[in-house]
Amino acid sequence: MNKILRVNLTNGAMTTVPVPNRWRKLTGRALTSTIVYEEVPPTCHPLDGSKNKLVFSPGFLSTSLASSAGRLSVGGKSPLTGGIKESNSGGTLAAAIGNLGYRAIVLEGESHRWQVLVLTKDGMALEPADDLVGRTSYDAADALRRRYGQRIAMAIIGPAGALRLPTAAIMVSDMDGVPSRPAARGGLGAVMGSKRLQAIVVDSGGMKKNPPANPKKLRAATKRFAQALMAHPASGKSLPIYGTDALVGPIDRLGGLPTHNFRSGSFEGAAGIGGEQLREIILARGGKTTHPCMPGCVVQCSNIYLGPDGVERVRGLEFETIVLSGSNLSIDSLDVVAELNRLCNLYGLDTIEIGAAMGVAMDGGLLSFGDGAGAVNMLGEIGKGTPLGRLIGSGAVAVGRALGLTHVPAVKGQAMAAYDPRRLKGTGVTYATSPMGADHTAGNCLPNTVLPGVGPIDTTKREHQVELSRYLQKVAAAFDSLGLCWFSRYPILDDPTLLLDMLEAQVGGGWTWDGLLDLGWQTVQTEVMFNQAAGFTEADDRLPDFFREEPLPPTGDTFDIPQGEVLQTLKP
Amino acid sequence: MNKILRVNLTNGAMTTVPVPNRWRKLTGRALTSTIVYEEVPPTCHPLDGSKNKLVFSPGFLSTSLASSAGRLSVGGKSPLTGGIKESNSGGTLAAAIGNLGYRAIVLEGESHRWQVLVLTKDGMALEPADDLVGRTSYDAADALRRRYGQRIAMAIIGPAGALRLPTAAIMVSDMDGVPSRPAARGGLGAVMGSKRLQAIVVDSGGMKKNPPANPKKLRAATKRFAQALMAHPASGKSLPIYGTDALVGPIDRLGGLPTHNFRSGSFEGAAGIGGEQLREIILARGGKTTHPCMPGCVVQCSNIYLGPDGVERVRGLEFETIVLSGSNLSIDSLDVVAELNRLCNLYGLDTIEIGAAMGVAMDGGLLSFGDGAGAVNMLGEIGKGTPLGRLIGSGAVAVGRALGLTHVPAVKGQAMAAYDPRRLKGTGVTYATSPMGADHTAGNCLPNTVLPGVGPIDTTKREHQVELSRYLQKVAAAFDSLGLCWFSRYPILDDPTLLLDMLEAQVGGGWTWDGLLDLGWQTVQTEVMFNQAAGFTEADDRLPDFFREEPLPPTGDTFDIPQGEVLQTLKP
Repeated sequence: MNKILRVNLTNGAMTTVPVPNRWRKLTGRALTSTIVYEEVPPTCHPLDGSKNKLVFSPGFLSTSLASSAGRLSVGGKSPLTGGIKESNSGGTLAAAIGNLGYRAIVLEGESHRWQVLVLTKDGMALEPADDLVGRTSYDAADALRRRYGQRIAMAIIGPAGALRLPTAAIMVSDMDGVPSRPAARGGLGAVMGSKRLQAIVVDSGGMKKNPPANPKKLRAATKRFAQALMAHPASGKSLPIYGTDALVGPIDRLGGLPTHNFRSGSFEGAAGIGGEQLREIILARGGKTTHPCMPGCVVQCSNIYLGPDGVERVRGLEFETIVLSGSNLSIDSLDVVAELNRLCNLYGLDTIEIGAAMGVAMDGGLLSFGDGAGAVNMLGEIGKGTPLGRLIGSGAVAVGRALGLTHVPAVKGQAMAAYDPRRLKGTGVTYATSPMGADHTAGNCLPNTVLPGVGPIDTTKREHQVELSRYLQKVAAAFDSLGLCWFSRYPILDDPTLLLDMLEAQVGGGWTWDGLLDLGWQTVQTEVMFNQAAGFTEADDRLPDFFREEPLPPTGDTFDIPQGEVLQTLKP
Repeated sequence: MNKILRVNLTNGAMTTVPVPNRWRKLTGRALTSTIVYEEVPPTCHPLDGSKNKLVFSPGFLSTSLASSAGRLSVGGKSPLTGGIKESNSGGTLAAAIGNLGYRAIVLEGESHRWQVLVLTKDGMALEPADDLVGRTSYDAADALRRRYGQRIAMAIIGPAGALRLPTAAIMVSDMDGVPSRPAARGGLGAVMGSKRLQAIVVDSGGMKKNPPANPKKLRAATKRFAQALMAHPASGKSLPIYGTDALVGPIDRLGGLPTHNFRSGSFEGAAGIGGEQLREIILARGGKTTHPCMPGCVVQCSNIYLGPDGVERVRGLEFETIVLSGSNLSIDSLDVVAELNRLCNLYGLDTIEIGAAMGVAMDGGLLSFGDGAGAVNMLGEIGKGTPLGRLIGSGAVAVGRALGLTHVPAVKGQAMAAYDPRRLKGTGVTYATSPMGADHTAGNCLPNTVLPGVGPIDTTKREHQVELSRYLQKVAAAFDSLGLCWFSRYPILDDPTLLLDMLEAQVGGGWTWDGLLDLGWQTVQTEVMFNQAAGFTEADDRLPDFFREEPLPPTGDTFDIPQGEVLQTLKP
């Protein structure tokens, strides 16, 4: 992973250069955010393909075959927030890019015709893709696999990306070649669409791999890590059995489950969308309750959800999707939620932002809460590109604006995920302060997370939430920079040597936990600097007022961390 | 005008207090902006009626019966820009408010039911208005005149305000009681709608007027001013004959007439929408080529436009409306433009923002350029509150976002008026730097405006545009603070004693031209401070990149004033 590939879509030039010295310690999010900071004019229009760039980077561990370590980082200026964006996905593309020796692919410029970027051990090419535009991501991916072989990995946009909607995702293929692992948040699919790049296709087959620094040590370290993952109750038991949807019960009981457009923290239909119900349906219909999104993963928190007819509906039906298009819309049917997820995948959309946008639309009277068929139809409008579809596809803030509403759960233009900040206050701090906007993946403070030197933190209290958010924002940025899945934190935060050993074996010596936290911190600070140059100020680092003013049933709690404290979170 | 009326819509409390000492020299925009700065939390949601306020204030001269001096200032936090907004209108309301002795009416809080605020010499009341909601502004105004008498003055919202669209205007009645004089820009109609106030009705009949400081001197000064207005070629000849539409020809010949969504500066159908054609149609159909919007006006630049059937279509058909819904949409029919204007008035919409939004919609393929019938239908959707209507009614930036477009002529979320900044560069500086967003009324630098100490400025050159914009932004803020129409500048900038004499006669001594420029400067600086606290930075003080990059046919000019110079415009 010692090369940077720059692809200029305007003139078709493709250039491979060695990694510059100043970037030698950077991969993943640390690298994508640094390249965006250094090279994208902060005030440019995010859809101006001549200025904005789209950067793909695997992490140092993405080619190691370690469990939960093959994630991909995608960076650019966000059409949704107007700030910097790092969006992150599982799937097989990160390893494929890394195995070809690329530390980053930087897409520059914009083409007048639709193309596919094809990378193999033998070379690279931009090939015509006019026949794929407007087709669903799944359909277009099928065509690409037929054209370039079943073993390819890919990143592909769907109709939403071609429409340049600010909720458009970049869909990354899983181990079966199905583009079901989105780099979803922040509309980077629209940036790819603005460059008229339909897909990146990578075939790393036949490539002689760069050997790790110490293969024997790596085998031992990855084995120890896998064992630690399996030994932890979260990554070894709850996630493999129920998937991420295991959280519905606990978050509902905590009173922090977004319901009815964030008007309640508890959903009477929670059992109908929870992990046990999900598992029961999957087992009864012959689906898969566990499924890996990347090679080597022992957690396998993904799943394959079938319809009553036994035909696959969607894979990777996850907690955030289920909440945003379930309880948040007062919909208690997993079949409806799965259909909404399926359509989002086909069109290439962020399920969180779309679920939140539909919640706001329901609050404004465009649809009734609980109307699953109506929600499916509304999502269908996006695929057709109708005015209604384009409005919903513009995201929660745009819908709130068009409907004249103040109750819109978003920060910096991006909707919140499945954690109400009135009961998950550390996550509220992350929503408010992360340069990503309201993004749980930037530092999600789940109940009883241990803050070093303090102990487990009660997320419903005011104390220590700012410190916890700051700590987890560093950890998340570090993990995003190495290719690590967030679920690998369960054993690593207890014993960082699990990670340090793998890094030393894969990359070479000189890693410390403090050094990794510092890498995370520097990465976040780089992102903050980009945002400041783009026009963000402390006035943007705040939750909407209603979280402080409207008590959340059933607990009646509010977000009550003083704004002055919130603003300290990312202060140097 | 020594009292402030505070109306709390939440609990119905109405309080009259003397003007505090610190505001004693402030009226109009100077006062509305100061009150918004002092009392509205800068980060609040503009539609949060419990925090945002709506302030109405006449100017010192609004009750003087001087020509062109009866304008009304309306202030609040803008739902369109997210910054401070002062929107300004003609009509009879400013004088009526002033004659009742109020220097400002401050609307606070929000009601659960729709109401009308009624002010007379005998008192004040909030009365039910449920029967008016959803009716057009004209229809509702008819009902109010039947209910409260034909001599009332009023400010009223239409369906757009009730829908809380960020393009909603506040419609102010003219001398015939017709609500045809909008305080249009920035969506303050939605702020009024968020408070569920349908209208303010003022009957100042029977009120004993506060006498001016020196009645005899005032008569002499207003007479001299009226004579000077009539003696100036612009205010005495061009405006009375052709109205503001006189500008179509010169701006088209200059190559700065927004055409085809700001893709050309010259329109082949310009003659069809120009002042001579307008005059010809009005005369042929028996309309009025001159019509005053306020008592005492000698310029009378307004008009009454009839359809081919001889029935009134719209009054006050103005240059900016004609350009934004004419050449900007490649529509060359004044009948179509008049129909679009009529619908905007009925729904209570900003014609500039809606014209710009439809231009962007046409650019994005929602409608064909030149399709007048389609444009009329599209506007009709706003009145019906359909998703398409709500999208267009969200303004040009929202439409651009939903359609994934970069070519959107707006600054700080607000669309530009009828002057392309590539050929009217000083106005471009104003668009970029005014705290109001891209608002020509904040400092419109027309060709050959004289910059003191320099002489007439060529708007197509780079030189002196920043100084000219700074100077005119001060003048505009001062005029907006006194109740003066912008057209009164023609004689006043040549001879400020015309204004100083009127002020001294009306208010009392101690006025200087430098003092007025300083009042304007302080007002703009107050607005800048509000915006900074609301989260605006220098990154917001810029034109969209395409104005610097895309040469404007037919001259091929770009906006080429260095950004570093632009940023100096409002620096202390």
